[in-house]
Amino acid sequence: MASAPAEHLGLRRQAVVRLVQKEGLDALLVTHAQNIAYLTGFFGSAGVLLVTPQHLVLISDSRYGGELRQLASQVPGLGAVVAPPGGSQEESLVAELARLGPVRLGIEAEAMTVRQHLDLTRRLETSGTLTELFPLDGAVERLREVKDTWEVATLREAGRRLSDVAKCIIPKALAGLPERGLAAIIEWELRQKGFDKPAFDTIVASGPNAAIPHHRAGDRSLAEGDLVVIDFGGMFRGYAVDMTRTVILGAPSPRQHACWDAVARAQRAAFHAATVGTDAEDVDAAARQVLEQEGLGDAFGHGLGHGLGLDVHERPRLSRRRAGVSQGPLQAGMVFTLEPGVYFPGWGGVRIEDDVLSTEAGPEWLTEPVDVVRAT
Amino acid sequence: MASAPAEHLGLRRQAVVRLVQKEGLDALLVTHAQNIAYLTGFFGSAGVLLVTPQHLVLISDSRYGGELRQLASQVPGLGAVVAPPGGSQEESLVAELARLGPVRLGIEAEAMTVRQHLDLTRRLETSGTLTELFPLDGAVERLREVKDTWEVATLREAGRRLSDVAKCIIPKALAGLPERGLAAIIEWELRQKGFDKPAFDTIVASGPNAAIPHHRAGDRSLAEGDLVVIDFGGMFRGYAVDMTRTVILGAPSPRQHACWDAVARAQRAAFHAATVGTDAEDVDAAARQVLEQEGLGDAFGHGLGHGLGLDVHERPRLSRRRAGVSQGPLQAGMVFTLEPGVYFPGWGGVRIEDDVLSTEAGPEWLTEPVDVVRAT
Repeated sequence: MASAPAEHLGLRRQAVVRLVQKEGLDALLVTHAQNIAYLTGFFGSAGVLLVTPQHLVLISDSRYGGELRQLASQVPGLGAVVAPPGGSQEESLVAELARLGPVRLGIEAEAMTVRQHLDLTRRLETSGTLTELFPLDGAVERLREVKDTWEVATLREAGRRLSDVAKCIIPKALAGLPERGLAAIIEWELRQKGFDKPAFDTIVASGPNAAIPHHRAGDRSLAEGDLVVIDFGGMFRGYAVDMTRTVILGAPSPRQHACWDAVARAQRAAFHAATVGTDAEDVDAAARQVLEQEGLGDAFGHGLGHGLGLDVHERPRLSRRRAGVSQGPLQAGMVFTLEPGVYFPGWGGVRIEDDVLSTEAGPEWLTEPVDVVRAT
Repeated sequence: MASAPAEHLGLRRQAVVRLVQKEGLDALLVTHAQNIAYLTGFFGSAGVLLVTPQHLVLISDSRYGGELRQLASQVPGLGAVVAPPGGSQEESLVAELARLGPVRLGIEAEAMTVRQHLDLTRRLETSGTLTELFPLDGAVERLREVKDTWEVATLREAGRRLSDVAKCIIPKALAGLPERGLAAIIEWELRQKGFDKPAFDTIVASGPNAAIPHHRAGDRSLAEGDLVVIDFGGMFRGYAVDMTRTVILGAPSPRQHACWDAVARAQRAAFHAATVGTDAEDVDAAARQVLEQEGLGDAFGHGLGHGLGLDVHERPRLSRRRAGVSQGPLQAGMVFTLEPGVYFPGWGGVRIEDDVLSTEAGPEWLTEPVDVVRAT
């Protein structure tokens, strides 16, 4: 996995230290794998990261010994602790905490299980370590919301490659092919274009299945007259990109055409609304308004989009405005999907999804959008 | 996703109710997705299951409304609660708990985050619901350890198909092909043989990379003289199977041949040891002994194998004996991998993995094992 250059890791480290201090804490225990990757460049399957104002300490087991030592030599301010054979990462963590003395330790409430919490508490008690635990929500995730220049370059490249995948696979959505068969072709093309793996289970939803937003890819064969919702994404150098195209097999019926066209225009309206300083909810509203004007508002049952980065679903969330909850205004450097859709049980559905970067100069498509046929 | 027939779901329900009662609880909240699938046949991405001696209540959001109602009509004793639009699954859960009155509720400590635990506690307090929470470890997982006849049939079919994948792909491991390219071919063949997706990130580790057990598939091209460790698995009707083959490109060197042969014989020894009533640790020891006799004991740094089922890593664990911890004896109906390996940093490695069912009549290969060249 390609890691961000040291200067970016250094800036991220400064940001997380400021966050720890702002929360009135002495240290932060990072357990969410993508947050660890963000702060250190470590993409292993086991490891925890202890952040203090002085150090980042990455703790893992002996399988990752070589990798940890290499990272520690490359990333300024990063220390590595490898659990000894027969010992555990958890023991090494408690030893590090004991060394710090009494600390107020932030933990990631969404990335620690009740079991891990009970174990850590017990180990701290048993060893007489005076660590107080403070659950935090989405602390490092908020830093990740605004991408740095290295991340933007990575996501631009990933978006370009995903658009190439789209061009290859759309002509292959032909009547007679089972949904699973098309999913296999998509995943093959993702690999050919340099992706490490799909970013999520590929969706090929044909005919009535197109009405089910969470359908995957089943045994049904594509048929003439179908709407086919194709939702696919890939992981590229650790980063997720995500697209949806809806293909009409054969000549579109007037209703199919009207739905497709309205969804495409809703997406375009959202794109134009996605300027820095606009509330995420107002971008959702811009798309929703187009669909409501066509009498399709009730058929758009989900939110408009989600942030993209090391996770395929991350901040910001672009959804309907709710009392008391706001995602706040878009900032330059945010990357997110715009994916309006309409669904009619038994009949089918349409969803169109592209990825967008918010910049001071206005929104920028990271994937190549569809042509909007009718003038808006 | 094909679900188990109603009679099997009925037996699983009886078993989980016995478990709840044996733990001295009134109810169990199941949050681990594979446990919910096991008890109900529901494979959705959102949902929780409330188990009481009288009912199973599956709670999800409106996206899964149709699916839940269908399941509730098919599975005896299963009730469905769909959160109303604008409401949440969590609210619906607390309403169900309030209806039960004061209960001692088991929770899955390994499948609930600190955030979920805090939220549930707060909601219970706010609503004045007298529910006491008791963290449990691996309760439903212990039921899943012994497969029923439907699961055995599914895993046999999956193993047969995975052996077919192995036959297709091994001849394609040729010098000049990048590791990623072979991974793409493997994942294509998995789809062709009816798998829904890879069970984990496919590993193609060539040359020196073969010495790294957690290597994935990178840019290195396979080269003449390489050992190539190919570790791949697929999800079939919700169940995971898993195989590893090590291919030698070109004429084996004496050391390559000796390592390959020792690992194959270690696996065969483990297979013969894997009889009902034998401790899992003694199966590991049978493989380890063969490697130790060849002076390769130190090169076998991981455990022998892991259970397979709805999760790709589940109980039982076949590993080295540790003080105070035992997996206990093998039981008929357990399904697990046997995957001894030896690794030499800088030089390479060999791992051979097949899947085995434990039966009263002795162990049964679910995947087609390698030929052991030298007589044991």
